[in-house]
Amino acid sequence: MVNPLTQDELQSILAFTVALARSAGELILEGSAKIRSSGAVDEKKNSVDLVTEYDVAVERLVKSKLSEKYPDFKFIGEESFAAGSRPEMTDEPTFCVDPIDGTTNFIHGFPHSCISLGLISFKRPVLGVIYNPFLEQLYTATKGGGAFLAQGMRAPARLPLADPPRPLPSLSQALIGIEWGSDRSLEMVEKKGESFKRLAGDPSTGVVKGKMAHSLRSLGSAALNYGLVAQGGMDFYWEIGTWPWDICAGAIIAQEAGCLVAGSRDAPLDNDVNEGVLWGRKHMVIRKIGDSETEKGVDAQRRLIKEFYDTVEDFEPK
Amino acid sequence: MVNPLTQDELQSILAFTVALARSAGELILEGSAKIRSSGAVDEKKNSVDLVTEYDVAVERLVKSKLSEKYPDFKFIGEESFAAGSRPEMTDEPTFCVDPIDGTTNFIHGFPHSCISLGLISFKRPVLGVIYNPFLEQLYTATKGGGAFLAQGMRAPARLPLADPPRPLPSLSQALIGIEWGSDRSLEMVEKKGESFKRLAGDPSTGVVKGKMAHSLRSLGSAALNYGLVAQGGMDFYWEIGTWPWDICAGAIIAQEAGCLVAGSRDAPLDNDVNEGVLWGRKHMVIRKIGDSETEKGVDAQRRLIKEFYDTVEDFEPK
Repeated sequence: MVNPLTQDELQSILAFTVALARSAGELILEGSAKIRSSGAVDEKKNSVDLVTEYDVAVERLVKSKLSEKYPDFKFIGEESFAAGSRPEMTDEPTFCVDPIDGTTNFIHGFPHSCISLGLISFKRPVLGVIYNPFLEQLYTATKGGGAFLAQGMRAPARLPLADPPRPLPSLSQALIGIEWGSDRSLEMVEKKGESFKRLAGDPSTGVVKGKMAHSLRSLGSAALNYGLVAQGGMDFYWEIGTWPWDICAGAIIAQEAGCLVAGSRDAPLDNDVNEGVLWGRKHMVIRKIGDSETEKGVDAQRRLIKEFYDTVEDFEPK
Repeated sequence: MVNPLTQDELQSILAFTVALARSAGELILEGSAKIRSSGAVDEKKNSVDLVTEYDVAVERLVKSKLSEKYPDFKFIGEESFAAGSRPEMTDEPTFCVDPIDGTTNFIHGFPHSCISLGLISFKRPVLGVIYNPFLEQLYTATKGGGAFLAQGMRAPARLPLADPPRPLPSLSQALIGIEWGSDRSLEMVEKKGESFKRLAGDPSTGVVKGKMAHSLRSLGSAALNYGLVAQGGMDFYWEIGTWPWDICAGAIIAQEAGCLVAGSRDAPLDNDVNEGVLWGRKHMVIRKIGDSETEKGVDAQRRLIKEFYDTVEDFEPK
């Protein structure tokens, strides 16, 4: 019989994993500088899907430190998974780690790359640490303990940064995180391209389904996109093609910041990041919205997610 | 008769303008927090083109401090221009300032917004200061004095960060900065959308003119995009629709970091940011590329800019 982790246990694990994420950050910075000076990159699959020796090195470091400190906890990691098959999920505590989220950024020195370190218990994320060493951004959360951002030398700030947050009447007021991703086949590029054009386009000029959002942003890191929605800096982040380690830490950080995390377009909007959402590869997150005079914030979140999914194309990730 | 500014004079102006940019940064942070807590935003033109009282307040602060310290220098600013007509450019020193570049980001609290403060002399940028107070990123350059990035508490680092930089054989290895911008008419959205799909798409699957670039990024600030190309974190930034204050500071920072700054597709590739390029509203910047065994870096820059312009659509900004 497995017991749920207490808040004290979670805080203790958080302290350990934050320190570990900072160590991993040093390795990430070292690796990024080395790669850009040497130009030596191991390219698998295609030129978009870049995997480097540092991805493996960081996962090895994190996995060994975690298994030393928490020998009974399980581990799911991007690199370990690539070498095997999908693990059976149990109720037991399971670390879920992307050693370097935003590998393309990492290779280019585009300073939006991070380690994403989540902990799953009873098949749901309960702790998240996201650390971007380039910009010294540290996002953290524990289930029931709130979400925080520590930027550089500043003290950790509770998320969302503006609370109560602004209302969000419609997609036309939204700043939306989207990504071009690694699948660049004709079908994907057409469907994503059309979806982006609808989100950006002005319907009064003839853009079919045009929503005229404030704008679209692409940073190239799923984990950091979650962090940005959690802090309230983006209103949405929509993605098809992610894996559990891309979103595990981000999902609990977002939830603790009042966001609603949703799976694919037909999944229930109950903010339950269960096994289906974690492994479902399709998801959306919307920031916390304050209650208005006429609508509760959570109802606004649900209404806007539906409007979003009605606007964009659906497709199957590779 | 006007004399060119000496390096000593430029360094003295740099020290003053860096301090001024940091003061402006405090006002930007204060304004962004206030706007997000109150939700009060003055919207002009359409929901994308947002201008706030803080845009005006920051420009007023900067303009008054500059005219007090440098009473003989001229001044071009986004807000001043909006209220009048295009100023005659002369050989005299002229500050060229965007008080808040990335206003949409500023309003949303998406932490990529900055003051962009440039100085023009003999109709060319000779000094640039870009400061993003959200992430404490300070980019600086003087003509002949090099370009630098100071990140948070770290010491200023000369740009590009990796020098000599990696080669860049083709667009397929590039990380490219693009923006959706404020004009969302059917024509613009179609032409931009097609251009982005070509840059991202895999030609082997049928994407016409597909270049399969590593990826596309959208940060929402022209000045910060210039900074990212200068540091080597992005390979290209392409834009149609900017004004001199959006690119003046960025252009000299990029040039001093070994980038090539180009105007519209038919403009000469001589890296001369003259009046035509500053006011031309179409431009591209490519990062420094090291010489290879078979090609000089500057020849690679020119070849890649041509390949880029052959790939994307051209259109007239509003």
